[in-house]
Amino acid sequence: MPYHSGRHTLQIPGPTNVPDRILHAIANPTIDHRGPDAAALTRTCLAGMKKIFQTEAEVMIFPGSGTGAWESAVVNTLNAGDKVIAFDGGQFATLWVKTARNFGIDVEFLGGDWHHGANAEELAARLQKDKQHEIRAVFAVHNETSTGVTSNIAALRRAMDAENHPALLMVDTVSSLASIDYRHDEWGVDVTIAGSQKGLMLPPGLAFNAVSAKAAEASKHSTLPKNYWRWDDVRVQNQNGFYPYTPATNLLYGLREAVKMIEEEGLPNVFARHKRLSEATRRAVRAWGLEIFARNPAEYSPSATAIQMPDGHSEVDFRAVVLKNFNMSLGAGLGKLAGKVFRIGHLGSMNELMLAGALCGVEMGFELAGVPHRKGGVAEAMAYLTASAAA
Amino acid sequence: MPYHSGRHTLQIPGPTNVPDRILHAIANPTIDHRGPDAAALTRTCLAGMKKIFQTEAEVMIFPGSGTGAWESAVVNTLNAGDKVIAFDGGQFATLWVKTARNFGIDVEFLGGDWHHGANAEELAARLQKDKQHEIRAVFAVHNETSTGVTSNIAALRRAMDAENHPALLMVDTVSSLASIDYRHDEWGVDVTIAGSQKGLMLPPGLAFNAVSAKAAEASKHSTLPKNYWRWDDVRVQNQNGFYPYTPATNLLYGLREAVKMIEEEGLPNVFARHKRLSEATRRAVRAWGLEIFARNPAEYSPSATAIQMPDGHSEVDFRAVVLKNFNMSLGAGLGKLAGKVFRIGHLGSMNELMLAGALCGVEMGFELAGVPHRKGGVAEAMAYLTASAAA
Amino acid sequence: MPYHSGRHTLQIPGPTNVPDRILHAIANPTIDHRGPDAAALTRTCLAGMKKIFQTEAEVMIFPGSGTGAWESAVVNTLNAGDKVIAFDGGQFATLWVKTARNFGIDVEFLGGDWHHGANAEELAARLQKDKQHEIRAVFAVHNETSTGVTSNIAALRRAMDAENHPALLMVDTVSSLASIDYRHDEWGVDVTIAGSQKGLMLPPGLAFNAVSAKAAEASKHSTLPKNYWRWDDVRVQNQNGFYPYTPATNLLYGLREAVKMIEEEGLPNVFARHKRLSEATRRAVRAWGLEIFARNPAEYSPSATAIQMPDGHSEVDFRAVVLKNFNMSLGAGLGKLAGKVFRIGHLGSMNELMLAGALCGVEMGFELAGVPHRKGGVAEAMAYLTASAAA
Amino acid sequence: MPYHSGRHTLQIPGPTNVPDRILHAIANPTIDHRGPDAAALTRTCLAGMKKIFQTEAEVMIFPGSGTGAWESAVVNTLNAGDKVIAFDGGQFATLWVKTARNFGIDVEFLGGDWHHGANAEELAARLQKDKQHEIRAVFAVHNETSTGVTSNIAALRRAMDAENHPALLMVDTVSSLASIDYRHDEWGVDVTIAGSQKGLMLPPGLAFNAVSAKAAEASKHSTLPKNYWRWDDVRVQNQNGFYPYTPATNLLYGLREAVKMIEEEGLPNVFARHKRLSEATRRAVRAWGLEIFARNPAEYSPSATAIQMPDGHSEVDFRAVVLKNFNMSLGAGLGKLAGKVFRIGHLGSMNELMLAGALCGVEMGFELAGVPHRKGGVAEAMAYLTASAAA
Repeated sequence: MPYHSGRHTLQIPGPTNVPDRILHAIANPTIDHRGPDAAALTRTCLAGMKKIFQTEAEVMIFPGSGTGAWESAVVNTLNAGDKVIAFDGGQFATLWVKTARNFGIDVEFLGGDWHHGANAEELAARLQKDKQHEIRAVFAVHNETSTGVTSNIAALRRAMDAENHPALLMVDTVSSLASIDYRHDEWGVDVTIAGSQKGLMLPPGLAFNAVSAKAAEASKHSTLPKNYWRWDDVRVQNQNGFYPYTPATNLLYGLREAVKMIEEEGLPNVFARHKRLSEATRRAVRAWGLEIFARNPAEYSPSATAIQMPDGHSEVDFRAVVLKNFNMSLGAGLGKLAGKVFRIGHLGSMNELMLAGALCGVEMGFELAGVPHRKGGVAEAMAYLTASAAA
Repeated sequence: MPYHSGRHTLQIPGPTNVPDRILHAIANPTIDHRGPDAAALTRTCLAGMKKIFQTEAEVMIFPGSGTGAWESAVVNTLNAGDKVIAFDGGQFATLWVKTARNFGIDVEFLGGDWHHGANAEELAARLQKDKQHEIRAVFAVHNETSTGVTSNIAALRRAMDAENHPALLMVDTVSSLASIDYRHDEWGVDVTIAGSQKGLMLPPGLAFNAVSAKAAEASKHSTLPKNYWRWDDVRVQNQNGFYPYTPATNLLYGLREAVKMIEEEGLPNVFARHKRLSEATRRAVRAWGLEIFARNPAEYSPSATAIQMPDGHSEVDFRAVVLKNFNMSLGAGLGKLAGKVFRIGHLGSMNELMLAGALCGVEMGFELAGVPHRKGGVAEAMAYLTASAAA
Repeated sequence: MPYHSGRHTLQIPGPTNVPDRILHAIANPTIDHRGPDAAALTRTCLAGMKKIFQTEAEVMIFPGSGTGAWESAVVNTLNAGDKVIAFDGGQFATLWVKTARNFGIDVEFLGGDWHHGANAEELAARLQKDKQHEIRAVFAVHNETSTGVTSNIAALRRAMDAENHPALLMVDTVSSLASIDYRHDEWGVDVTIAGSQKGLMLPPGLAFNAVSAKAAEASKHSTLPKNYWRWDDVRVQNQNGFYPYTPATNLLYGLREAVKMIEEEGLPNVFARHKRLSEATRRAVRAWGLEIFARNPAEYSPSATAIQMPDGHSEVDFRAVVLKNFNMSLGAGLGKLAGKVFRIGHLGSMNELMLAGALCGVEMGFELAGVPHRKGGVAEAMAYLTASAAA
Repeated sequence: MPYHSGRHTLQIPGPTNVPDRILHAIANPTIDHRGPDAAALTRTCLAGMKKIFQTEAEVMIFPGSGTGAWESAVVNTLNAGDKVIAFDGGQFATLWVKTARNFGIDVEFLGGDWHHGANAEELAARLQKDKQHEIRAVFAVHNETSTGVTSNIAALRRAMDAENHPALLMVDTVSSLASIDYRHDEWGVDVTIAGSQKGLMLPPGLAFNAVSAKAAEASKHSTLPKNYWRWDDVRVQNQNGFYPYTPATNLLYGLREAVKMIEEEGLPNVFARHKRLSEATRRAVRAWGLEIFARNPAEYSPSATAIQMPDGHSEVDFRAVVLKNFNMSLGAGLGKLAGKVFRIGHLGSMNELMLAGALCGVEMGFELAGVPHRKGGVAEAMAYLTASAAA
């Protein structure tokens, strides 16, 4: 790598740019995790996360990654051999299913077209056949980071309710929480899965579950072996502001600051900002003559856009050119999309000029890498950002 | 709490004081966890940790706490119903056994006198009876943080070898690694368990396993359900410098810096420093007329000293007085020692005057809290530190 | 130097320990010094500094050191050949006079016994002889950092008022502001001189003047050449929150945080804390059998204690032993006290255990350096700190 | 101001963006300014600055701003009434002259067309008339920050040499040092003036002089009153690594890191990067149909571009729109250019995508503020950056 002056442009769909306020918070001295300051920290973080999950239900915070949050959702609520429905919509849906299968869960994959989100009608049809209520849970990814496709969670809930189906609804919000409107309570979600490194603007290292009363009840009957991710231990210790393990104190400092920043901006403003930046990105993509991987505009992701490479051109080479020349990281194609799509993250601590600079890097990168495209993507993005400016 | 000027004195046996160099490293911008810089970071951290574990074997790093590192050791190597020997030497031994039992492991607890470390003869006797080699593993805690008692790991290995017993030797070094001489390879340990927040001088949030070839082989036959802690996934991804989950990037920055600092000081100097500071602490305790919880001088912990409160005096009240008056956190009595012992941590980023200030706080705290004691503990510690100074 | 683990003990009478809160504030991104955020920053800092100077008068902030603040006081108010009275009480009084003489001021030095503060009667006698009011200013150092002697500024003002003398009263508070009760308005001071690196808990780099209406008036008639330190330029620009030069933005961030911290603790508590810590230090000194350089208990400095070395022992050697063995910096003997006294700073962000650790380092250092002393200084300090604790 | 997510875009011609590496360096604990670590810090900084000034001569570092560095150059070398030639090329030339006049220097202003740099022929003609060598110094601004015009310093030196004129050549490099090739020795400069907050990528707060032997000799005969800026005091103390005042320790930490970063990139690469980014900026300006304030392409500034607003449009309003909508600070019109030009800084820690984002903000800002322009500036900049990329 040549020497690069200035800031790296981190434009992957997470980990996202961590604001200085949060980095400084994280750099505070580590404290006694069993003292009064630690207890106050826990309480502030838990209360703040409830607002962000839009829930009155309980929230669990683990030192871990989003992968751990999936595992926690599974091992606390299910039993080996349980039937679960999931939607084959992308790489992260696939990995979550792999997690569940590693615990002996019998997952049935619906769908399979990664260009679209979870299909509520398909779910309804499947549930209708489940007269015995053998299906114990439905897994859905609110925003599939690998494809830039969102799923309508409220519609899934309605489909379940229409069938009076008792399955638990579990939702991965790793790349949607604090970026895309998400309502744990209103949408009747039982377990929400989240991580720190996307909309929350933190480094990776914290995993979250929001847990409905129904999921909490289910956890009493789950016999999957577990220790680290065990909700009931956490619940008992959280009463006093503590944890059954040593918490990742410094990341919690960061979380406290992130919650504060999100409150300062206001959740609705956060959501509107992500929508606007994503629309600017999509307009650039269309102007370049490239295809947005998501097919249904209603399912376009406010947090990440996956873009199909023209045939015969690899995203791997393209991203390498961009990294080398412009010191920008773009998202790779994941799983079966490797080589075929690249992704632009526009979530977290992000604004117009950060995005505009990144889009310039993409447009220039196309040229340098010899990727066929029309010029003018940046111009279209600017036109939209200008037209939609508050001024 | 009244307003406190100046630094908090963090004198618990971990989390320990995080040096500014490490805090600043952690405050660096988060990067693409799948880019070349991340790969280089992984490789540097893994190579550095091998030196610290004194091993050529493979090392695994997880986003998680030490509790997770126990779980990882268990779920990767054992099977439900496996027989394991552990030593009932303190609260952390107890919690590790609880972890194992949560996965259906049949743990037999030897010992039970928390004043002493693992007894190699007792182990030898027990193994001798195990003609069928039903025992699959021996769990030992190198330094029991709750009691300030170390165990002779080499002696345990010798006892196992003397019986030609094939059980795996698994050792918790959470509060000994990078504080007390520890040799994964030389002592024939199969799985070493560690965390970031003690001798490594990092905030909590990273969990480690060092894994012998024998343990790696055992992992091929382990049928315990697992996903997050699954070694083979980590191994595959680590080849390229990556992980099967999003790593805790910023804590890895800190780890890279910690490894560098430990190399600058030199591991033997690190160990000698801890020994010296612990001896100063024990001399203060004796001068105060109080009892060191550990009974065998050969097992005194270089990283933490547990001190028995005089009858009728609670450590909880004492520590509260110290916290309120002198803004110092001391370690609580844990498990069955709650109320009865308090602990002074003298590990990690620590030196003579930091310790001296802390001992002054203890001596003054005794007075304020009405704890019967003789004066002169600090004076004794100073006499020893002076006599043993390099000048 | 050998490798030192843990924190350096910075126990000089300034620069003092900068709290993490302030260091993090300083590490914020630099901003446009002519934008609205910069203007708000200026206003907050100026308002805060007025409270700390206990004044309604105007405050000037310069990028510079305390030496610059002296120069600013001189060049804005005086003219070449002006007669000024100063007190020969220590190294900083001497340097201030050197500054003035470099601008052609005719300084007459009273006193000369560095063991004592400015003598109000001596001043009164001198002013009485000045029937023509040729004396244009009186210079006094509130707390002489080199000797640990304070001067009674209110008494000097009373002496001047008793003579109805029109001279300006200028006071150096570099090592007293935000450590020792200081009242610019109530004591009728015309120009107060201060710096950032002592009681304000900041790194060095900011210089302050508080300026009475009378001094402002005098500045209209001062013909000394000046540009950088020119008050009227600053005044004009400050109206809009700006400066006639590029301000040291990041240190101003630190100042804003320092002001906030001082308000949180409360100025009276700050002063009481310094008094208490200094008394503990002096009790240690007496117990060691050494002599406090200040002779008059009413003039003992709450911010720094100068201690006389026994004959035949050099403070230079002693401090070198302490630095090498215990990684602690103590204050040197300055000017004519070089070799003869060392100084312990106990100002700024400081508490009982930080001081106790430092006193341990001094007591141990005496032993290692072969400095004749009695043991027990630390014990005496502890006894006092315990007896005076709030519990 | 509405809440702004993401980073502020600081695109003024200084203070510039401070890299995290430097901010973290500055956030290190303040040390004893008279201890061995401080001495090593001084030496490293002085040695590094010599390389950056491209000189073997002595370098002085002051706590202060660039304004102070002017004053220091003046008061150390000149005498009241001395004749000096300066070039009326911009606001900073004007302020420097004001500084000199405040010390009684008799400055004669040549030129007056701010669109052009210092004219060597004009200087030659003037010097030719100075048969008595009454002119003691020539002041030149290497890069006039207010206009984006550079001056050919080597040509000025040649003009002086051609006349065998003994005047001192003093050069302001505040916005050129470490951005534009500058050679103190080769160009025969006697005093170079610099500050920390531009090409050195530091916050404001340090002022520099590089001093030729001839200037040092002149300083022996200078009778202007001075104390703070007095070179000979600095020189004596610098021998031991110290200063005659308390240095701005934490900014020196930053300077040490800045020097290291500049060495890592390599000075020639630093200069080439600035040239390339400035060319991209100018191409954008031309495409917008606006006029670059500098008229002579040979004098275009690599560090800042001043752009003329169309008649009837105020830069003040335009910049306010940009700040409010896009959270970007642009440089104001200064002095007689107030309202008429705005400036884009492209110096310091800066790269293609940072600049591209900023240019997008300008182009969008024109639209929002109703400033007449053609679209396509960003596209032109991208075309150039792509064509000139190293790939």
